[in-house]
Amino acid sequence: MSDEHDTPEGVNEEVVKMVGDWGGYVEAKLGFRNHWYPVRFSKELAEGEILTVTVLGEQMIMRRIDGKVYAIRDRCLHRGVPLSRKPDCYTKDTITCWYHGYTYRFQTGELVNILAAPDSRLIGKRKIQSFPVEEAQGLIFVFIGDMSPTPPLSQDVPPGFLDEDLMVLGKHRDVNSNWRLGAENGFDTLHIFIHKDTTLRHYRDFNFPIGHTALPGAITLVEDPEGPKGVEDDFSKHNPIWDGLIDGNVVIRGPRSNNVEGTSASVGTSIWLPGVLKVNSFPAPGLTQFEWYVPIDESRHIYVQTIGCKVETEEDRIDFAHNFETTWKPHGLDGFNGDDIWAREVTEPFYQDDYGWVDEMLCEPDSSILAWRRLASRANRGIQKRKDLR
Amino acid sequence: MSDEHDTPEGVNEEVVKMVGDWGGYVEAKLGFRNHWYPVRFSKELAEGEILTVTVLGEQMIMRRIDGKVYAIRDRCLHRGVPLSRKPDCYTKDTITCWYHGYTYRFQTGELVNILAAPDSRLIGKRKIQSFPVEEAQGLIFVFIGDMSPTPPLSQDVPPGFLDEDLMVLGKHRDVNSNWRLGAENGFDTLHIFIHKDTTLRHYRDFNFPIGHTALPGAITLVEDPEGPKGVEDDFSKHNPIWDGLIDGNVVIRGPRSNNVEGTSASVGTSIWLPGVLKVNSFPAPGLTQFEWYVPIDESRHIYVQTIGCKVETEEDRIDFAHNFETTWKPHGLDGFNGDDIWAREVTEPFYQDDYGWVDEMLCEPDSSILAWRRLASRANRGIQKRKDLR
Amino acid sequence: MSDEHDTPEGVNEEVVKMVGDWGGYVEAKLGFRNHWYPVRFSKELAEGEILTVTVLGEQMIMRRIDGKVYAIRDRCLHRGVPLSRKPDCYTKDTITCWYHGYTYRFQTGELVNILAAPDSRLIGKRKIQSFPVEEAQGLIFVFIGDMSPTPPLSQDVPPGFLDEDLMVLGKHRDVNSNWRLGAENGFDTLHIFIHKDTTLRHYRDFNFPIGHTALPGAITLVEDPEGPKGVEDDFSKHNPIWDGLIDGNVVIRGPRSNNVEGTSASVGTSIWLPGVLKVNSFPAPGLTQFEWYVPIDESRHIYVQTIGCKVETEEDRIDFAHNFETTWKPHGLDGFNGDDIWAREVTEPFYQDDYGWVDEMLCEPDSSILAWRRLASRANRGIQKRKDLR
Ligand code: FES
Ligand code: FES
Ligand code: FES
Ligand SMILES: [Fe+2]
Ligand SMILES: [Fe+2]
Ligand SMILES: [Fe+2]
Ligand SMILES: [Mg+2]
Ligand SMILES: [Mg+2]
Ligand SMILES: [Mg+2]
Ligand SMILES: [Mg+2]
Ligand SMILES: [Mg+2]
Repeated sequence: MSDEHDTPEGVNEEVVKMVGDWGGYVEAKLGFRNHWYPVRFSKELAEGEILTVTVLGEQMIMRRIDGKVYAIRDRCLHRGVPLSRKPDCYTKDTITCWYHGYTYRFQTGELVNILAAPDSRLIGKRKIQSFPVEEAQGLIFVFIGDMSPTPPLSQDVPPGFLDEDLMVLGKHRDVNSNWRLGAENGFDTLHIFIHKDTTLRHYRDFNFPIGHTALPGAITLVEDPEGPKGVEDDFSKHNPIWDGLIDGNVVIRGPRSNNVEGTSASVGTSIWLPGVLKVNSFPAPGLTQFEWYVPIDESRHIYVQTIGCKVETEEDRIDFAHNFETTWKPHGLDGFNGDDIWAREVTEPFYQDDYGWVDEMLCEPDSSILAWRRLASRANRGIQKRKDLR
Repeated sequence: MSDEHDTPEGVNEEVVKMVGDWGGYVEAKLGFRNHWYPVRFSKELAEGEILTVTVLGEQMIMRRIDGKVYAIRDRCLHRGVPLSRKPDCYTKDTITCWYHGYTYRFQTGELVNILAAPDSRLIGKRKIQSFPVEEAQGLIFVFIGDMSPTPPLSQDVPPGFLDEDLMVLGKHRDVNSNWRLGAENGFDTLHIFIHKDTTLRHYRDFNFPIGHTALPGAITLVEDPEGPKGVEDDFSKHNPIWDGLIDGNVVIRGPRSNNVEGTSASVGTSIWLPGVLKVNSFPAPGLTQFEWYVPIDESRHIYVQTIGCKVETEEDRIDFAHNFETTWKPHGLDGFNGDDIWAREVTEPFYQDDYGWVDEMLCEPDSSILAWRRLASRANRGIQKRKDLR
Repeated sequence: MSDEHDTPEGVNEEVVKMVGDWGGYVEAKLGFRNHWYPVRFSKELAEGEILTVTVLGEQMIMRRIDGKVYAIRDRCLHRGVPLSRKPDCYTKDTITCWYHGYTYRFQTGELVNILAAPDSRLIGKRKIQSFPVEEAQGLIFVFIGDMSPTPPLSQDVPPGFLDEDLMVLGKHRDVNSNWRLGAENGFDTLHIFIHKDTTLRHYRDFNFPIGHTALPGAITLVEDPEGPKGVEDDFSKHNPIWDGLIDGNVVIRGPRSNNVEGTSASVGTSIWLPGVLKVNSFPAPGLTQFEWYVPIDESRHIYVQTIGCKVETEEDRIDFAHNFETTWKPHGLDGFNGDDIWAREVTEPFYQDDYGWVDEMLCEPDSSILAWRRLASRANRGIQKRKDLR
C-alpha cells in the first residue's frame, strides 16, 4: 500500500528503487501505519494513573478511566508542549495543559475548555489526535493510524494468540536497533548459530543444530483477507547442520540429546504483520513464544516478549507462573534472547543509512526473510512517515 | 527588512512562505541584525580583564581598557582559531594570537603586527571585525551588525529604561530555547496560568487571575521612527478570568486579595525590538521589570533579567538593593521566572524545525503575540544569517 | 588525480571550485587513496593476535599469522556486522562471523565456508576486501586502495626513512582534527611561535626564533616519478625573527644560546605524500623526526610519531633507546608536540564545513603550505570517498 512517489523523509530513495518488490519494507523505517501494536502490559497501568509511551514516532499519553484505557497524543494543540511534562488532571477523564489551560477529554480528544481563555471559539470545535486502545491477554494494544473503521485486533496478532485457554506472561524492554532488524533476527533460521553457547541448554534437553536449511515446502505464505498476514517456516521440513567444517576439519558441533526427538529446539516459527513472531514449542514443548518488535523511532524498538501456555485449571496457571518466573524469564527471555538483542544492536549501523538493504549479501536460506519483506511490502496497511507526526 | 528570496540557511522556506506577513520573524532564528543587545553586567568586566560571549552566533572577546569596553570577533583572521583559547595580551590595548602572532588592536580591530612575520604586507591593511559597545544602567550593550552610522541605543531599549533616576539591578543566565520562545513567553497574557502556584504570592499580596483576555483598545503598536518599536498591552483593558471550569464545575481558582486593587499582578506589559520585555508595576508596585532574550545561537538565549526602581536618595538606593537581594531576586527572578524558563525549554522541540510556527493552534488572546510577530517582521533592521558569521 | 565532477559526499563543492589548483586537497577530507599508511607498531601485534584499526574510514581487522600480518575489512559480507565484536577464530588463518558463520581466510579474504549453511553457492565465490600489509622500521603499513600492482612502500615514506642503519622508535595517539590540520601544523614555519614556552628548551641548548621567513630558494618541490613526492623547506635559507614588537616596543624575545650555531632548532623540514613530515636534526642534532597524520575519518587522525637515529653498534642502539625513553619521548613527542596536538584540535572547527579553506587569511610565509597543497592535489593517487567504504 506504499506510494512509491512519496518516499518518507529520511529514507534513501535510491535504495527503495533498487530493492524492487520490497521497497515498501525499506520505506517502513518508522513502521507500518494503521496497525495494532502492544505498548505495555495491562498491569503497568492502574486505575486513574497515566503513562507515556512513544510508538512509531508518536508520543502518547494513556490513562485508565473506569477500567478502560484511553490514549491521546502527548502534545498540546496550542503550542506543542508535552502534556505529560507536568500533568494537570483536574477531573477523572480530562487532562489540562500546564501552560495555558487547554483541556482535553481522554475518550475523544475533544478540546473541552481553555481554562485561561474560556470564551475561545476553539472550544468544542477542535480535537487532539486520539488512538484506539484494546486490551487482550494482559497487553495494552494501541492502533496507530487513521483508518476507519479500525480493523479488528485479531488481524494483527499471530494465530492462536487470542485463544481463551492461553495464559500469557512476559516482559518488555527498549532495544537500540530499527524494528526490522528485530523481526529479521527472530525469523532468521541461520541465526541459530549465535545461540550455540546459550545457557538455556542447561535448563532443558534439546537438539540444537548450528544451522538449518529450508527444503521445498517449508515456507508458506498466509494472506487470508480476514486474518493475520504472515510467513510460516516449518522446521520439520529443514535440513539441520550439526557440524561446522573449515578446510575439511570439524571445528564446532551442535549439541544433540539422546532423549529428545526432532531436529531443533523449536518445531517452527512464523512472522506476522505488523512485526510479531510466533515460535512454536519454545522455549520448551507445550509453550509458544510470541514477541513483538514495536517501532519507537527509526533506530529503536520496544521488544515485547511473551510466552503463552495452555491452561485449564488454576493449578495449571500457578505452575506456569512459577516456571515462567524461575526458568523461562531468566533463561529464555533474558539469557537466550539476550544474544538476539545484542546482535540487533550490533547490526544497526550497517542499515542506518539504508544502504545495508542493498549492500548485504544474503545466502540461500535467507529466502524466508525475503519472503517476509515482500509480504510485508504488499500486505501492510500503510507506511508511517515523519509528516504523519505533525 | 528581510529579503524573502534569501531565507537563512537552516530555516524552513516553506514555513516562511506559509506565515505570510511575519515571515521575517520566522527567518530570525538567529536574531535580528543591526541592533543593540545587552550581553553582561558592567561589574562583570573589570579594568584590563577579558571576557568572551557569544551573541547571534558571533563569538566575541571584550576587554575593558581605560574604563571603556571594546569587543572584537574571537576568531583569528589567519587560521580561524579563537584568540581566547590562550589569550596573549602583551600590551594594554592589543591581543596577540597564540598560534602565529597575528596582533589586533581592540579599539579598531586593526592588524597591527604579525609577531612571527613582521614583514607581511597584511599588517596595517586588514581588520578583524569589531563591534560597537556602550554601557548603560550597569549593562554592557553590543551592536551586532554593519549599519553605519550605528543607530542610538535609545532606539533599542524600552521607554523609561535609560531614565537617569532609575536604578537597575539584575542577573543573567543561559536558557536552552530559541530567543523568540523567551520573548513570546514573556509577552503572552495567557501564560499567567503557569504561575498559578508561584511562591511569589507569599511575598506580596496580589490579585492573580488564571487568565485574562484583551478587550478592544488594550493592544497598541508603537512605531515612532525616532524611538523604540514595540507593542503595548494595557491590563486595565482586560477581562480577568478567576475561575477555571471543566464540565460545569470549578476546578481551580485564581487568588484574590481584599487589600489590593487591580485585576492582575502587573498593570501591563510591552515588548520591543530587538527582543526585550517591560513589565509595568512588577514584581511589585513601584518597580518595573525589564528583560532581554538575547540570541546565543538558534537554540539558546541569554536571559538578561533586570528590575528598575526610581530612586532619589542614597537611602532609596540602599533600600532597593536590599529588597532586590532578599526578595525580588530570589522570589521574582529566580522563583517566579523559573517557571518561565522551564516552559521555554519544554516548548523548544516543537519549534526547532520551524514547523511549529504553522502547526501551533493559537487562540483569540494570542492576537497580541501575532501583533508582535508582525511588527518585528516589518520594523527590524535585518535578519542575522549564518553566512554573516563567516 | 581527483575528478572534479565527483566531489566526495560531505565536501563543499563551492569551496572546491574556489580554491582552484588545490581543489583535490580540499576534497581529500578522508585522505588520499591508494597510498601506504602506518597504523600501529609491529610490537603491538603478537603472533596469533588480532587488532582492529580504522583508517581513511575503513575499519579493518588484522592478524599476525606465522609472523606476517594480514588485514581484511572488519565487516561481514552477509549482514554487515563487525567480525571483531566477537571474534571466532577456529583456525589459525580464518575468522568466522559470530552471527551466521560466514568464514573468511585472512590472506585472501576468500569466503571459505558458511558454517550454518555449508551448501551455499557463495562459498569460494566471494571475497571480503583485503588490504596489502608491509612492515618496515617497526611499523605496520597498510595500503588503502585498489590500485594494481600496489606501488612500493618506498614511494610513500620520506627519503632516508628506510635506511638500514636507521633505528626508529616512536608512539602513536588519536587526535581530534582532520589529518590536514596535522600536516599543515607540522610543516608550517610560522607556528614556531607556539613553541616559544616549550619545556624542551630545558633539555637541549638551542636558538629558537619566534618566527622565520623563507628566502628565495628555500622551498623545493620533489616530484621524481620513482620516489616519494614532497616539498622541502631549508631553514638555512630563512630569515629568523628574534624579537616581537608591538607599537615599537619589544614585547617578546626568542631564546638564543652562545654555544649553538644555526638559526633554529631544526635545519629544515619536508612533507611527503600521503601526509608525513620529516624534521631534520630534530629533536636534537643527529636525530630525525618522522611523523604521520593518518586519517581515521573526516575529523580525527592517528598521530604516528617516530624518531630515527643512525646506529652502528649494539651500544648505539642501547644509548638511543635510553635517550628516547628518558628525554625525547617525554620532552619531545609528549611535551613539545603536545602544543601541536592542542593547536590542531582548536583549529578543527574553523575548517570543519570546508569554508575555512577560503575564509583563512594566509600571509607570505605560508607559501610553503600552499606549495604542499598544490603538490598533494596533483601528485596523489586518488581521493578517498565515503562510497569507497560501501
Ligand atoms: S501550550 Fe498547552 S495550553 Fe498553551
Ligand atoms: S591562527 Fe592566529 S596567528 Fe595564525
Ligand atoms: S552477519 Fe556475518 S554471518 Fe551473518
Ligand atoms: Fe534468536
Ligand atoms: Fe511568566
Ligand atoms: Fe610544532
Ligand atoms: Mg550489495
Ligand atoms: Mg500538525
Ligand atoms: Mg497553524
Ligand atoms: Mg570570512
Ligand atoms: Mg581566502
